[in-house]
Amino acid sequence: MRKSQSLNRRKFLTRTAQSAGLLALADLQPLIASSTTVPTLKSWTVQEVIDLIMKEGGLSPVKDTVDTLKSGKADQVVKGIVTTMFPTITVIKEAARLGANFIMAHEPTFYNHLDNPDWVEKNSVVQQKQQLLEKHNIVLWRFHDYIHRLRPDAISYGVAKKAGWLPYYKTGQSMLTIPSVPLKQLVQQLKSSLGITNLRVIGDPNQACQRIGLLPGAIGGQRQVALAEREKPDVLIVGEAPEWETVEYIRDARLLGRTISLIVLGHAVSEEPGMEYFVDWLQPKLPDLKITHVASKDPFTWM
Amino acid sequence: MRKSQSLNRRKFLTRTAQSAGLLALADLQPLIASSTTVPTLKSWTVQEVIDLIMKEGGLSPVKDTVDTLKSGKADQVVKGIVTTMFPTITVIKEAARLGANFIMAHEPTFYNHLDNPDWVEKNSVVQQKQQLLEKHNIVLWRFHDYIHRLRPDAISYGVAKKAGWLPYYKTGQSMLTIPSVPLKQLVQQLKSSLGITNLRVIGDPNQACQRIGLLPGAIGGQRQVALAEREKPDVLIVGEAPEWETVEYIRDARLLGRTISLIVLGHAVSEEPGMEYFVDWLQPKLPDLKITHVASKDPFTWM
Repeated sequence: MRKSQSLNRRKFLTRTAQSAGLLALADLQPLIASSTTVPTLKSWTVQEVIDLIMKEGGLSPVKDTVDTLKSGKADQVVKGIVTTMFPTITVIKEAARLGANFIMAHEPTFYNHLDNPDWVEKNSVVQQKQQLLEKHNIVLWRFHDYIHRLRPDAISYGVAKKAGWLPYYKTGQSMLTIPSVPLKQLVQQLKSSLGITNLRVIGDPNQACQRIGLLPGAIGGQRQVALAEREKPDVLIVGEAPEWETVEYIRDARLLGRTISLIVLGHAVSEEPGMEYFVDWLQPKLPDLKITHVASKDPFTWM
Repeated sequence: MRKSQSLNRRKFLTRTAQSAGLLALADLQPLIASSTTVPTLKSWTVQEVIDLIMKEGGLSPVKDTVDTLKSGKADQVVKGIVTTMFPTITVIKEAARLGANFIMAHEPTFYNHLDNPDWVEKNSVVQQKQQLLEKHNIVLWRFHDYIHRLRPDAISYGVAKKAGWLPYYKTGQSMLTIPSVPLKQLVQQLKSSLGITNLRVIGDPNQACQRIGLLPGAIGGQRQVALAEREKPDVLIVGEAPEWETVEYIRDARLLGRTISLIVLGHAVSEEPGMEYFVDWLQPKLPDLKITHVASKDPFTWM
């Protein structure tokens, strides 16, 4: 497909989608089939998809962003998209099985924040993972800095949505005021809504929780403790926390008589709802491509 | 007690202890009572105790060490010593109850590695903890860099000892070769010997474990992954691990067919046996003072 055709198709689809609201892919297909002779939908490169996200999200470039390609090239034509938290070997194989060749992963591919493959010298696991990505011709893009900069942050919004807390969610705020519930019930509610089997808690099971500090992922002890000090939430909900920082702070705060609890969900499961929700965000803007969420799941067995 | 008396007493006691080997405190007391008119044993300042550890441990000063006083003054006369992992509010109160005014804590007091009290501005928990330490006139020394530099490292030695692995422990090495045991049995053995209620695992419960990478504490993902790559252990045992680093590395390694497992003990419980063992190390060298280990315990409830 030539560039001009491609752009026209894009404008056409965008306008159609806009006028029809959240038009489902199924509704679009017959329309396209009857109005063109090319057998496929509009062809998108990886770069065009990223540009679309930037444009539709109203995003400006972030200096030194970690949101770079970890494998493949930006001019590759996209056959399908998979979103996930951690692009594990299972997720990569599942993407290949689905015929998708573009993975958007929220977290690192090569086990360090900057995805430096030489972070540990001659890392054989990194090398095998690179070979697997190459074999399946998969472009892997980290989608971390930009998804957090959407308004609302699609990660925290997705978590709030899945937890049933959208009525209490405010864009740009980590604090939510929910109807008061005992800690033990809050834990059960989170496990059930987010599909979490096990988690770790500091607190009195009967403590009333209403003001919630919701910080999925691993944003660091300093920001977690700062929120706890500034906002004095009843409970802080995090994905991962350094034990010598946030965890000991909460333990001491409680021992000093403060009414505060901590729920540690686990990093992968804590932000996964955001990458799941992002399919809902992107699919209507990109009806030409199939976008699938593949959960990376909790890596641990709890014994 | 005057300084000259104090020094003479120290020399006398050191020589006596040396000639008698590991002389117990109980054996010394009558000897002292009969040979002096002062009612107490030799008086030690905090600095003298630290100097003794440095001398007896054959330690050289570490540049920019985090092993500094977090409360109190080096010239305070020591009434009793408590060793612990995390100097929680409970541990501080227990030290005061025991009449100890010198706490040696392996990990931070103020929830960050450098123990900067302003790491989070106007941290009310830090302020209350400082007040509690002041109220009980407790000197709190971090004992991290130096205890790891003892030969053997008293932390890993203490953990190996408590796990029943001293026959397989080699000074300066993180790798131990133990009699082969299935992963699930190894987990039960660690829980029982180290007194751990819950822990997290990645691996096949039936995998044979013989070559063990023992890395208590939170030494960082890079060193954990480097050991796994270099030594190819059957199982890596850590205290705490960044989930986006070591945890995902192990998950992928296994998915790629590697035979490796991960056991995450929890930071506090993973190094506590080292601070417990250090009492055995120090007490015979310092029979004048009562040294007690107070465990900081697992901060979490697992739900």
